[in-house]
Order: sequence, then structure tokens, then C-alpha cells
Amino acid sequence: MKSIIISGTGSFVPNNVVDNGQFAKADFRNIDGTEIPNDNAVIIRKFKEITGIEERRYADSTMQASDLATVAARKAIDDAGIDPETIDGIILAHNFGNIPYGQVQTDILPSLASRVKHDLGIRNPDCFAFDILFGCPGWIQGVIIARQYILAGDGKRFLVIGAETLSRVVDPFDRDSMIFADGAAAAIVEESDISDCGILSVASRSYTEKEAYYLRYSESNNKEHTPGLRYIKMDGRKIYEFALTNVPAAMAHCLEKSHLAIENVKKVFIHQANEKMDEAIIHRFYDLFEQKAPENVMPMSIHKYGNSSVATVPTLLDEVLHSKKEGHVLEPGDVILMASVGAGMNVNAITYRMPPKR
Amino acid sequence: MKSIIISGTGSFVPNNVVDNGQFAKADFRNIDGTEIPNDNAVIIRKFKEITGIEERRYADSTMQASDLATVAARKAIDDAGIDPETIDGIILAHNFGNIPYGQVQTDILPSLASRVKHDLGIRNPDCFAFDILFGCPGWIQGVIIARQYILAGDGKRFLVIGAETLSRVVDPFDRDSMIFADGAAAAIVEESDISDCGILSVASRSYTEKEAYYLRYSESNNKEHTPGLRYIKMDGRKIYEFALTNVPAAMAHCLEKSHLAIENVKKVFIHQANEKMDEAIIHRFYDLFEQKAPENVMPMSIHKYGNSSVATVPTLLDEVLHSKKEGHVLEPGDVILMASVGAGMNVNAITYRMPPKR
Repeated sequence: MKSIIISGTGSFVPNNVVDNGQFAKADFRNIDGTEIPNDNAVIIRKFKEITGIEERRYADSTMQASDLATVAARKAIDDAGIDPETIDGIILAHNFGNIPYGQVQTDILPSLASRVKHDLGIRNPDCFAFDILFGCPGWIQGVIIARQYILAGDGKRFLVIGAETLSRVVDPFDRDSMIFADGAAAAIVEESDISDCGILSVASRSYTEKEAYYLRYSESNNKEHTPGLRYIKMDGRKIYEFALTNVPAAMAHCLEKSHLAIENVKKVFIHQANEKMDEAIIHRFYDLFEQKAPENVMPMSIHKYGNSSVATVPTLLDEVLHSKKEGHVLEPGDVILMASVGAGMNVNAITYRMPPKR
Repeated sequence: MKSIIISGTGSFVPNNVVDNGQFAKADFRNIDGTEIPNDNAVIIRKFKEITGIEERRYADSTMQASDLATVAARKAIDDAGIDPETIDGIILAHNFGNIPYGQVQTDILPSLASRVKHDLGIRNPDCFAFDILFGCPGWIQGVIIARQYILAGDGKRFLVIGAETLSRVVDPFDRDSMIFADGAAAAIVEESDISDCGILSVASRSYTEKEAYYLRYSESNNKEHTPGLRYIKMDGRKIYEFALTNVPAAMAHCLEKSHLAIENVKKVFIHQANEKMDEAIIHRFYDLFEQKAPENVMPMSIHKYGNSSVATVPTLLDEVLHSKKEGHVLEPGDVILMASVGAGMNVNAITYRMPPKR
């Protein structure tokens, strides 16, 4: 039986480092506009304790999300060693589109995938290009969609990208703005003749009854600041509790579909949203199997990169696959889980077995 | 062999009729900001001659694209006679997201599909919800994606919606603003045990080398009006020429994949962008088979509804299926072609055989 493998990855982490100290003079407010009694030093220390974030990356003012995407895509194409003209489709996940630096309007016409295809110089018209919006789990969902195309016999090779410039939608009066970052990553997902490897199972869920607006586009905490304009906003506590229940459940559901035992899982790649949350998720996940989470099972990048939405999981995967994460090595045959959670609220997961080395 | 059929459709055409006369006092400019020498009466008459558009519909100021989508989705669910909790996924195509009336920011967090699922009160978490951006062909592309899910064995029943409020992104200084309209339509796409009907073949192409920015988000023709803000803009002549070559080719490619002869095609549903363009497309399509286009093969709605982007094809299909288009009747076994073209530039097509009546 044919497999569906990730044959190449690439990521682009912008050069501009913004450390926590750069928020020392921020005028943080509560959501009702009232001032927060604590010193910023205290706010920042607590923030770091919970989220693990020490610094994050912002894109150059000259670049937009689709530009980050193109850089990551080029690396993934090079890594896979393929001719870009052989790609059957480009799926690009994001949540805010292109927002030129200093502007407030989202630009999604044409789709970012069209722009990337244009910038990569791919001429083959049979390579479709579309965007998907599925919250932070968008890149994993893109891989799932590529898999459905391959299983349906409608194409063999897809470029799946996640790209986001959250620095363009943060409210300077909101502590949560310290979480968000910019970044992009990409993978080539393709059919392979090597059996019993690649994507083993997938799971994907949307919780919208109470949860649809836990993450939303809404006004600044400072009601006098830019009235009518919107920024990324979240109910952090509710998301935390939601994720703790639903991410481990989706991961377990996905693993079950692969017919593998928990002992087979070598590494777990979880969306980098919050260190404490990710640690709680991994413990809950192993609890479901009455096991303890192994040491070092979960590579992390949030400390240095912050939360770059759709880009976190593929960036982390790219760094581990290219031996850039100390203590994290993957060998052929190793099984990994990837899982994400985000706006929607959406949750998804993929079980994946590393293919043989080329 | 199982089939993939459209088991229900629904559309929502807003009540607010905006006729051409309402542009009589518009201050239309050329793209360089210079005034257009002709009277508006002349401009409007020529516009109607080419596009066929007499009037268009705008959404109520209280509604956004996702609200239109929810109305259309409810009708499609009712038409299919299904329990909405049995839907495995919601795919919503749009190009500008929700834009609250009078505002300039696109709101796509959460995705419109999440909002619709929320508003429909669907609780089943295994029903995913995501948006796709693929220009005006987005709804057809959504049907293609639903088909891949079904063929891959990952779900049996999908809700595919197209919704757009182009009235919120038009430049009042641009003649092209007369083209654009608001609307939504939806379909239930599902696996069926009845063999030899439903979706017979699909085709999907993206042309981005020269064409990526033929449709784009750009500044007003009046450079003193809202500098920095963007509106929908198009290179009408280039799009016309592009469509005339590439839409018939994609339709022919799709029909070929179905192994049916041109004589089998009963009706052709083409994206309602421009009457003269659609007529030229249908003639070119039949030319490819050295045939003359049959009388009345192409139902049209552009005269009264304008171009509502992703909503035009499913709205037209819904109206024909519900006997609302005089002279256009579909019987079980009839073969139809659906085709679209739009921002990206993207082109796609579906060959479909009408299933037996329930």
C-alpha cells in the first residue's frame, strides 16, 4: 500500500528579536479598560512563568505573511529536492492574511497561496492554489486536506504552508499581545511507494457551540485608542481549560485510529501557545493511557519564538528534522504525533511514522 | 460504485434591490484618477450592454457574509431533509470575510464556517468547519474538496457554502463597482448508494504567473478619497481575455475526464460575472467540439442579481433545481457542467449527473 509522507520541510523565523523587556513601558489594561495595578515588571515575570515566552520574532516591515510563506516554501522545495513544477497543489493556512505594516486592512485578494505560487514562479496551471482558515491548527488541516486529495487519486504532491504575522493584529494595551509572533513554515506532502510509513491517521474537530468566539477580532482594551478598529483577542482562561480537555482527547482518538500503542510514540509536537498549557496537555494525554509522559517527549520553541499560530508545529518539525533542536532526534520508523488547537475552536492531530532516509 | 451527489441546495438573495439608476450621480473616475468624459447615463447604458446587469442585491446593514451563509445553509439542510448533526464538515468559500457595514476591516477570526456552525446550533464536534479562499470559484472548489474527503473515506456528508458581501469592498469612484453584489448559497454534498450519478469529474487550475493580480485589493480611483484604504479592483479587459481562453479549456478538460460526449450536456452553469463574457465562453466551449451552443443551454441570473462572487453558481443551481428559472428544467439523468473563474486567477469545473428524484 502506498504511503503519504512529508518529503521536505522549511521554515522562516524572522530575524527581528523582540524580548520581553520591550514591553516594560507598555500601558497594559484590563479588558474593561481599567488600569492593571501591578508593575509591568511583575506582569512580565508572571507572563514568562506561565507561557515560557522570553522573546518572540516579528517580520520586517517590508514583508507580509505571503512573503514569509514564500521563503519557507522555497526551503521545503529544496529540502525535498523536487522540481516545483511537479507540485499538484498549494494549500496555505493563515488567519489574518497579508496586512501591510502600519495598515489595518487584511488583504486576501488574491489568496496568499496564489501570491506564493506567483513568487515561486510556478507556471504549471494544474497546480491549484488556495488558502484555508482553520485557526492555529490550519497547517495540520492543510496536511489533512492534501492527504484526502492523494487518497482520492487527485494529485500526488502538495505544498502545505502555514504563515502568519500576528504582530500586525496585536492590541498594545493587552498583555496577551506578548504571546503573539510572526513566522512561516512549509512541507512537501506526497505519495510514496514505500509502505507502512508517513501519515497513519488523522483527526479533526470543531467546537463552536460555546467556544466559537474564545478567540476573536475585537476592540482594544483602551476604549479611547482607535475606536472601531479590531485586534486579536482571547479568553485565555477558557481556552486553557478547553485545550486541556479536548487536545488530549483528539490526540488519543487519532492514535487509536492508527492502531498503535502509546509506547510507540517517540515525540509529540504540540502547537506552541503556552508552555504551561502544553505541559498540562501532554500530562493529560499520557494520563488517558495511565502512563507518565516520558522525559523530553515534547520539543518546544515557544521560549524564543512565541506563538506564531499556524507556523509553530511545522517550524518545530522542521527544526527537529534538521537536527536544530538539541536532545530531539528522529530516526526512520519513529512515530510522532502532531496536534494543534486554536480559533474556531478547532483541534486536530496527525499520527506519522518517519519514512526511511533517502 | 457509490456516487457523490448534491442532495439539497439553498440560496439567500438579499432583499435590497439596487438598480443601475442609483449610480446616476456617481463620480466615476479612471484608474489614474482622471474624470471620465462621458455622462453617467452613457456609462450605465454601456455597462448594461456588456454585463447584462440591470440591478443587484445588497445585504442589510445588520448582516454580514456569515449571516447570509447561515440563511442559505439552513435552506440547504431543509431541502436535503437531513439532521444537521449528521454533517461531517462545513466548507465555506468567500474572499473578503465578514466586513461589518460601514467598517473597513475584514473579520475572519474565527472563520466564517465556525460562525455558521455556531449559528446553526450544530454541536457534533466531529463536524469540522473551515473556510477556503479561491476567488469566485471557491464554492465549486469547496464541492471538490468535499468530494476528496468522501473518496478518501473520511466523512460522508458535507455542507458547502459560498457567501460574499462585495458591496462592502466596492470603490464608489470605480465603474466596476456596479458589477458587484451580495449573496450566499449552499449545498449538501454527500455519498449515495445510487450508482452512476452525481459528480462525474472535476477540474481545477490556478494561473498565477501573469494573472495573480488581475483581481486585487487596491486603492480608490480617487486618490484623495480614503488614501491607504483598499477596495476590490480588477483589470476587466485582461480577465475577459483570460476567461475566454481558459474557462472553455477547463470545461472541456473536465468533460473529457467524465468520458461523456458534448451532446450529453443539458445545461451549463457559469459564474455570473458578465453576460457578454459568459456568452463568449459558452460559444468558445462548443467551438472546441465543433458544435453550436444549443439555445437556452446556459441559465443566467446576472441581470437581476449582479456578480455575487462565490454565490453565483450555487444560487443559479438552487433556482433551477427549485423550478424558479423559467425554461430551465433538470430531470434525473441529465448531465450538467458547472464552471467558474475568478481571483487567483483560478478556474474550475464539475461534470454532474442528476440523481433520481427522492
